[in-house]
Amino acid sequence: MTPQSALIIGSVAIDRVATPFAQSDRILGGAASYAAIAASYFAPTRLVAIVGADFPAPYLRRLKKHRIDLAGLQVDPAGKTFYWSGKYHEHFAGRDTLEIQLNVFEKFSPTLPAAYRDTPYVMLGAIQPALQNHVIDQFAGRHPFILADTFDLWIHQTRPELERMLRRIDLFVINEDESLLLTGARDLVVAARQLRKMGPRIVVIKKGGHGSVLFHPDGMFAIPAYPVEKFIDPTGAGDSYAGAIIGYLASRNRADFPTLKKAVAYATAVSSLTVESFSVNRLSTAGRATIDRRYRQLQALTRF
Amino acid sequence: MTPQSALIIGSVAIDRVATPFAQSDRILGGAASYAAIAASYFAPTRLVAIVGADFPAPYLRRLKKHRIDLAGLQVDPAGKTFYWSGKYHEHFAGRDTLEIQLNVFEKFSPTLPAAYRDTPYVMLGAIQPALQNHVIDQFAGRHPFILADTFDLWIHQTRPELERMLRRIDLFVINEDESLLLTGARDLVVAARQLRKMGPRIVVIKKGGHGSVLFHPDGMFAIPAYPVEKFIDPTGAGDSYAGAIIGYLASRNRADFPTLKKAVAYATAVSSLTVESFSVNRLSTAGRATIDRRYRQLQALTRF
Repeated sequence: MTPQSALIIGSVAIDRVATPFAQSDRILGGAASYAAIAASYFAPTRLVAIVGADFPAPYLRRLKKHRIDLAGLQVDPAGKTFYWSGKYHEHFAGRDTLEIQLNVFEKFSPTLPAAYRDTPYVMLGAIQPALQNHVIDQFAGRHPFILADTFDLWIHQTRPELERMLRRIDLFVINEDESLLLTGARDLVVAARQLRKMGPRIVVIKKGGHGSVLFHPDGMFAIPAYPVEKFIDPTGAGDSYAGAIIGYLASRNRADFPTLKKAVAYATAVSSLTVESFSVNRLSTAGRATIDRRYRQLQALTRF
Repeated sequence: MTPQSALIIGSVAIDRVATPFAQSDRILGGAASYAAIAASYFAPTRLVAIVGADFPAPYLRRLKKHRIDLAGLQVDPAGKTFYWSGKYHEHFAGRDTLEIQLNVFEKFSPTLPAAYRDTPYVMLGAIQPALQNHVIDQFAGRHPFILADTFDLWIHQTRPELERMLRRIDLFVINEDESLLLTGARDLVVAARQLRKMGPRIVVIKKGGHGSVLFHPDGMFAIPAYPVEKFIDPTGAGDSYAGAIIGYLASRNRADFPTLKKAVAYATAVSSLTVESFSVNRLSTAGRATIDRRYRQLQALTRF
């Protein structure tokens, strides 16, 4: 096994987040921020994203602290960073987007630096499917292992592009609700089977605080969420979960069933850190030893 | 280890159930029916409940087929059996009770036949806490292992009696929502800790289609639901889950952490059968070999 690099493509944002209990403003957000930091615990990580001239220097330093390769991070000196403001409902049952300023993200065209085109493990965050396909086009001739995420807006608005993307990837990571929306299935097992017929040979369905389920050609695997005591903010949990998967697969340079089970367990441990603070604070400072300890606790928690 | 008997106290009912996809009327229902059949797969099972003169003979035969001891089943020749009619919401997100006819259940006083008073493993279904306490009184001097369930009505209406009951039992099995309602906690780990302070040294929190979590003095254990493909009706799933636990503990005559983990896994397998049909049909006909197979599948499904 030769450890490989992971490449993350997605949004880097400035967030304002309100939960039923607290709020925090102008914090580092965006799927790619969470995913890249998560992946960096396992493999050398490359990032393709865009920010504006206002992007705070401490947030750049935060990404650099994780030795994330920022050659693919475009900085638009004329624009402002993507801004998202959201508010979670009581009991965290859903959330409302209060404000979106796309800013530099509006004209984002994810162009891979030449040196990135041989990255063998790639995560496409939940950007527009047309942009996801544009990234895949750039691997022409190469066949990296590709993980992709999406969200309900693209299911409603750009379904043909989304379906084209699904035919071109290896691993689809999706929320339970969105898996039902996309397939029309009534339950998760049927949804996963239909998703695999649409293209990806591996599917992971995330159930938030209820864990996740892996569907691989060699079998199924289910894991509960790590039992967090201080739940602060779920933002980025799914992104760091997916980032940990691609990072772990890169570190092992394989995607067989036993390796994917371990990847999903590490992802469960990593995302449990994300929800323990606003932004990437806990995720970034927890350290690999804490992740390994939670991985072992998950083993103990589930064995009978 | 000497296998022991299990005793189930609760309701036997005639149900009418409507789901978003189908409905079924005048079917065998009631927590004690589901629990007793589930327990009977593991241990000799005794039943204390009440029915009316109208109770269909085939339903009696169904219970007898499982060799359930019916010496404690009161038959009131002047009354009618407890009747419940309910309708599940879309996606099975909650249900409405459309009609309740308490009938003979209104004057039910669970009196244990003398021969039942030495039963070492007892399940108190979600009947009124005053009746649950009345049953416990009848063990005077003896200390069986007691599992109890409850539901939101009793949390709202008879909380002091419920709290008295909780101080007298060993294992409390409760739904996630009800655990939060009863404790005021925001999440399951905190709820379980507070419930254990209220009395029972062991707590199991059920999360429906998302599995369950065991909190034991020696540790925590989490298990996903068995991935059912043909989900028909959730009625009785929690009751058969609890019945399987008390039956398994009786069969092993112990309640240590490893044994409870296995009991919870068997309960997960058993309740997955219950949801695959209306009433006890699938639960009753599946057979022990099917339960054992699902138990092993759950082991494979969760190991990494």
